[in-house]
Amino acid sequence: MPEVVIMKEIKGKNEDHARANREKFAEDHVLMVNIMGAPGAGKTSFLMALCKELKRRGIKSAVIEGDLYSSIDTDEFTKEGFDSLQINTEGECHIDASVVRRGYDKLGFTDGVVFVENVGNLICPAEFDLGEALRIITASVPEGDDKPYKYVPMYSYVDAVVLTKCDLKEAVGFDTGFFIRGLRAVNEAPVFETSVRSVESAEGICAVADLIEDRFKEV
Amino acid sequence: MPEVVIMKEIKGKNEDHARANREKFAEDHVLMVNIMGAPGAGKTSFLMALCKELKRRGIKSAVIEGDLYSSIDTDEFTKEGFDSLQINTEGECHIDASVVRRGYDKLGFTDGVVFVENVGNLICPAEFDLGEALRIITASVPEGDDKPYKYVPMYSYVDAVVLTKCDLKEAVGFDTGFFIRGLRAVNEAPVFETSVRSVESAEGICAVADLIEDRFKEV
Repeated sequence: MPEVVIMKEIKGKNEDHARANREKFAEDHVLMVNIMGAPGAGKTSFLMALCKELKRRGIKSAVIEGDLYSSIDTDEFTKEGFDSLQINTEGECHIDASVVRRGYDKLGFTDGVVFVENVGNLICPAEFDLGEALRIITASVPEGDDKPYKYVPMYSYVDAVVLTKCDLKEAVGFDTGFFIRGLRAVNEAPVFETSVRSVESAEGICAVADLIEDRFKEV
Repeated sequence: MPEVVIMKEIKGKNEDHARANREKFAEDHVLMVNIMGAPGAGKTSFLMALCKELKRRGIKSAVIEGDLYSSIDTDEFTKEGFDSLQINTEGECHIDASVVRRGYDKLGFTDGVVFVENVGNLICPAEFDLGEALRIITASVPEGDDKPYKYVPMYSYVDAVVLTKCDLKEAVGFDTGFFIRGLRAVNEAPVFETSVRSVESAEGICAVADLIEDRFKEV
């Protein structure tokens, strides 16, 4: 089947680009973090809170924003004084390693953490290594507690799970135990509970910042 | 570029299958409805409420459930006595017309409404015509009011928009006017407000059932 051959070729090329990215990030003393999640999972709000916490700790961060269309998210980061760059995929369902590299080279950023906010999609981004050192999925409580059972490749792919909008747990009847059992069937990744709308959120964001800080020391 | 040629070939074949499906559905006096939406948009809960309302009106319905993995959703429909069939895409990001046809032929259903619950994804399903007569997107309030600005191809593709989880509008600060302005930039489709957790939901579900009933009369 020719489409299988072509897909293998595309993914093979992506692996080469990802490898080159990894070398470049190491040279530049950059920790690259790939943030994935469904549309509306709260990736941008979580990322904003995280970047502010890292800034308080004296760690520089920059954001590469992936969206099909619009620059709504980059505008927010620019307003807050963070280096940021918008990638519009114009309909594409994921970002690949070569696209990240073009964005990264434009940013001209070194000695810090670069976050890639991937396209809102729980499927296709799990097939494209960007050369990142850390993969985080943001899973919003209103999406439901059954998602690890349904989106197995994505939930297998990540190094950490950030539960967002935890203030809505009661309102939507989210069963944390059921969610974690589904996750544990495929992945031992740590789970962080956050909510940017409630005071208790700070604890979860700080715990993620601890993880980022630890991993940045290893770069 | 070979991948572009291959994609055209795949989509060309899909168009042929979609055309054949349309003829078959007309022969069988079936209205086929494609339900799309992000992961956790509430497609299944909305669909369950809608099928029950159609049953009250004496209209038969059946459900073809698309998921990467698991049969969580089909089990619910079977329990409620509806004809249903699970399609596991095993990682694929959308359902195509030939897959729908195989499922439909197994169902052996005529003279009613067949719903296809597509894979949770706001991008790829908008590229694959299934031969359906009606396309509905379920957009959940917690996803945020900016989605029509970001997922333009999907919001252009549909015939009706069902807002779900409307009981959470206040909790998440959803701006209905902003959402509708984004939608209106690309599509004049009607918007239905629903929530399966609040009493007022019935009105929105009934309005969608009216639309389905009207379209079914035309089959």
